[in-house]
Amino acid sequence: MMIAQPSAKYQPFPPVGLTDRTWPNRTITSAPVWLSTDLRDGNQALFEPMNGERKMRLFQELVRIGFKEIEVGFPSASQTDFDFIRRLIDEDLIPDDVTIMVITQSREELIERTVEALKGAPKAIVHVYNAIAPAWRRIVFDMSVPEVMGLVRHHIGYLKQLTDQHPETRWTLQYSPETFSAAELEVSLEACHTAIEAWGTSADRRVIINLPTTVENATANVFADQIEWMHRRLVPREHIVLSVHPHNDRGTGVAAAEFAMMAGADRVEGCLFGNGERCGNVDIVTLALNLYTQGVHPGLDFSDINAVARIAEECTSIPVHPRHPYAGDLVFTAFSGSHQDAIKKGFAAQDPDGVWEVPYLPIDPADLGRTYDSVIRVNSQSGKGGIAFMLEREHGVVMPRRMQVEFSAVVQRATDASETEISGAELWRLFRQTYLSSDASAPGIVYHAYRLDESGEGIALDVTVDGVRKTLHGKGNGPIAAAVHALDLRMRIDAYEERATGAGADAQAMAIVEAALEGVPGAGFGVGMSHNIVEASVQAVISVANRLVRQRRAQG
Amino acid sequence: MMIAQPSAKYQPFPPVGLTDRTWPNRTITSAPVWLSTDLRDGNQALFEPMNGERKMRLFQELVRIGFKEIEVGFPSASQTDFDFIRRLIDEDLIPDDVTIMVITQSREELIERTVEALKGAPKAIVHVYNAIAPAWRRIVFDMSVPEVMGLVRHHIGYLKQLTDQHPETRWTLQYSPETFSAAELEVSLEACHTAIEAWGTSADRRVIINLPTTVENATANVFADQIEWMHRRLVPREHIVLSVHPHNDRGTGVAAAEFAMMAGADRVEGCLFGNGERCGNVDIVTLALNLYTQGVHPGLDFSDINAVARIAEECTSIPVHPRHPYAGDLVFTAFSGSHQDAIKKGFAAQDPDGVWEVPYLPIDPADLGRTYDSVIRVNSQSGKGGIAFMLEREHGVVMPRRMQVEFSAVVQRATDASETEISGAELWRLFRQTYLSSDASAPGIVYHAYRLDESGEGIALDVTVDGVRKTLHGKGNGPIAAAVHALDLRMRIDAYEERATGAGADAQAMAIVEAALEGVPGAGFGVGMSHNIVEASVQAVISVANRLVRQRRAQG
Repeated sequence: MMIAQPSAKYQPFPPVGLTDRTWPNRTITSAPVWLSTDLRDGNQALFEPMNGERKMRLFQELVRIGFKEIEVGFPSASQTDFDFIRRLIDEDLIPDDVTIMVITQSREELIERTVEALKGAPKAIVHVYNAIAPAWRRIVFDMSVPEVMGLVRHHIGYLKQLTDQHPETRWTLQYSPETFSAAELEVSLEACHTAIEAWGTSADRRVIINLPTTVENATANVFADQIEWMHRRLVPREHIVLSVHPHNDRGTGVAAAEFAMMAGADRVEGCLFGNGERCGNVDIVTLALNLYTQGVHPGLDFSDINAVARIAEECTSIPVHPRHPYAGDLVFTAFSGSHQDAIKKGFAAQDPDGVWEVPYLPIDPADLGRTYDSVIRVNSQSGKGGIAFMLEREHGVVMPRRMQVEFSAVVQRATDASETEISGAELWRLFRQTYLSSDASAPGIVYHAYRLDESGEGIALDVTVDGVRKTLHGKGNGPIAAAVHALDLRMRIDAYEERATGAGADAQAMAIVEAALEGVPGAGFGVGMSHNIVEASVQAVISVANRLVRQRRAQG
Repeated sequence: MMIAQPSAKYQPFPPVGLTDRTWPNRTITSAPVWLSTDLRDGNQALFEPMNGERKMRLFQELVRIGFKEIEVGFPSASQTDFDFIRRLIDEDLIPDDVTIMVITQSREELIERTVEALKGAPKAIVHVYNAIAPAWRRIVFDMSVPEVMGLVRHHIGYLKQLTDQHPETRWTLQYSPETFSAAELEVSLEACHTAIEAWGTSADRRVIINLPTTVENATANVFADQIEWMHRRLVPREHIVLSVHPHNDRGTGVAAAEFAMMAGADRVEGCLFGNGERCGNVDIVTLALNLYTQGVHPGLDFSDINAVARIAEECTSIPVHPRHPYAGDLVFTAFSGSHQDAIKKGFAAQDPDGVWEVPYLPIDPADLGRTYDSVIRVNSQSGKGGIAFMLEREHGVVMPRRMQVEFSAVVQRATDASETEISGAELWRLFRQTYLSSDASAPGIVYHAYRLDESGEGIALDVTVDGVRKTLHGKGNGPIAAAVHALDLRMRIDAYEERATGAGADAQAMAIVEAALEGVPGAGFGVGMSHNIVEASVQAVISVANRLVRQRRAQG
């Protein structure tokens, strides 16, 4: 059994004793103010922190999604962050309705550098924190409570003094007692009131008080009680924006944030898909879509959630788990026959203008730009393995997981029609027909040949389009980008992989691309096969283009 | 913005109105009865359901972890499951203190087949469910509430009649009203009482009433109120084991299970690492370790959590996310300097016999067989990228993520000592010294050559061990297994990958293996490089063996 009996080593977190709590009687009826800390707390926890270019890509995506407050970095600790923030301000890249925030430790030279980073911004939030919890006071800093309060007063006062010299910026203070969830509530409250007093508040100068579960250390109801306790005591409450910053060490970050809103919080800090230190910050995507399914508009746009997931994965190199709520590859996939049957009947009975009530689907996948997939297991009952297994074993085809979902639905339709079990040969025929057909008389684009120009950035495609032979020209930083450009469709490549389908010198390469087309929900896959890896890639691009264009036509 | 304004399409789930609830005042002071449904609910949601062999492997691991109740399949729906269950019973593979459970739909022929599957088992739980929620009654089955109750009475009565003919087995009924969380509480209660009455209870014949959030549809406090409502009304409560079966569609499955325990539940059904339909079942690993960190022994053994994670991944082909609580690759990794500093001081101040209170670490990683890693970013501030990036770009080395964590700690120690920034050349030297050194005069094993026998199952290793040249012989279903056997250490290989480190005919292959050694917490990596891929693999096995044995010696 476990190395240690835990009773000797771990103690339960003491309850708050708030017996007259009101939060369990509440429901959430409006969205909080969202703060994205993807570019700060999320970025700190990456193996390779984002460079300026990836930060800019994610910043623009966060703006597009609809975040109005974005923590953009830790400029006093990172030159990359400092330069990125200066670029945002100097090149006027922050929309008028968006406020940037930066974090700083409580030290004079770091506060100076922070104000330096923000000079000239129309609006800015400066996020100051102190470690006030007992373990930190004793182990890390060796300080008494009055000493901590003296530091809070001094550093917030110093920040006020510096920012008062730059009245062209509208400054907001955010103060975090760290780590709030593990601290005595009286000490947290005193630190917050000390900060508020040092900064000064009014109806025009609201302070953000941010209460983190830097490390989750109790069941989520305890955090809710802590928030309700603070909510009742903070003054002047009407000039305070009460914010929470939940982490996820016990896997209950989403619940903690929801209860905190019920307990009085006005604002939530988190990251897309729960990125962040250790087990992550609270996942804003799940929180927002949880609100959405209860009829509350979150004010954030996840109507093409696949695109958001792919951008986040690319910027952070952290995958979205296949079972991640709303966004995972498998969450709108039904494997069981009884579930498939109930969902089918639910879709048939669904009133298009009525309340959503399809069994097993808590949200309409179309609202997220996704589709529902009923997945058949070709031979699972006979123990011979599934579609992916058969194609890999017999033809060396390694399908990415999302493609497995897509192709399963194709097989489902074929077997529904024939009502027979499918053979390996039939499966391969269906795969070729779906992804590799090239009938020159059919509508769409048929590939004949390609030519790269000497720079390597231009491509000429010899193709037949809707029966007419022609040459298309395109440019891009590689043959795939150039081919997409040559096709002149509003198509975005989300993923690409290529590998040999067998061993030996005559093995062909199979290229698989995933792409999305404007006007078509979800993404699709295309395949190319050739001894030449560039040709396989180009064929795959044309394959997915044909499939997505056909889908768009079929929609009307 | 979103395609639809949600207010037109989605409605909030109505609250229970239990204003005198007591669960928010409670804390969890003992572990529930755990039921693992990895082999049933978890298995149903896999692309490729487990075959008999993988089911057996996972069954044995679940027994080893300490589960006393294990749902082993759906025998009336799957021949694989039927055969697996017969094998468990006929070959007497179920320990005396473990009870197996199987699920069945409420249809006569399926109930017959289910009893058939269980004949001769000393103890068995039969899990019967009916769809009773309004959307299911109306859309899927077109049935009234009295009709549903009639079916419950009939099918449970039929099961009683069949099982009464087999008194050699100690039968327990588990009844689930499906989907409880979306149904009227009065209807759920009536269905449960109808089932209890049809089966008959006594102090010796307890019934398990299992209440699922088949699909999560509200904040977790609503589920807690539902459970407390049922807990107060179910009779005879003393003969009922109140069980919950939370799913995770809103990312709050763990919180829902914890609150359900506070609200009166005695038993929790879930899967390892939250596998299961869509967003998964509740994660029993997180639940159990959440208890552990509050001083409550969960009765489950996760003292080598890496081994559990690797077995689960192998059996299900679903990865454990890098930020998964307690088990993710990155959750005991600190990137930020201030966190590293606080953790270092915390370790120094930690009383070995005292209460655990190291900042930022909610649990001692050693209790899970893991280690804490402080990770330095070689050049992050200068924007030139991290360790992994530099080694990949300059030397074609692609390190798996856990190896990145391991090697980062090596770099951290080196840079702490030198207090200078590290160059690419120095990094490569450190990598070679760590994984690829082969000094024949050093203690440990030095590789010279290998020879495979004709069967391909035997290997002869020409090596120097602690200065003495010798030949070691081993057998196994491949050169890696044979090399491990030849070394005669209690070493387990967890992962293996190999790839070319460059392009062209003279590129060398690099093999990387991850292994664990009895008596050494955590796992380690070894590397081999050669033009011959078998030789690279053998070198990698020797490399990791040397590293792990040195660690064991260093521990004393």
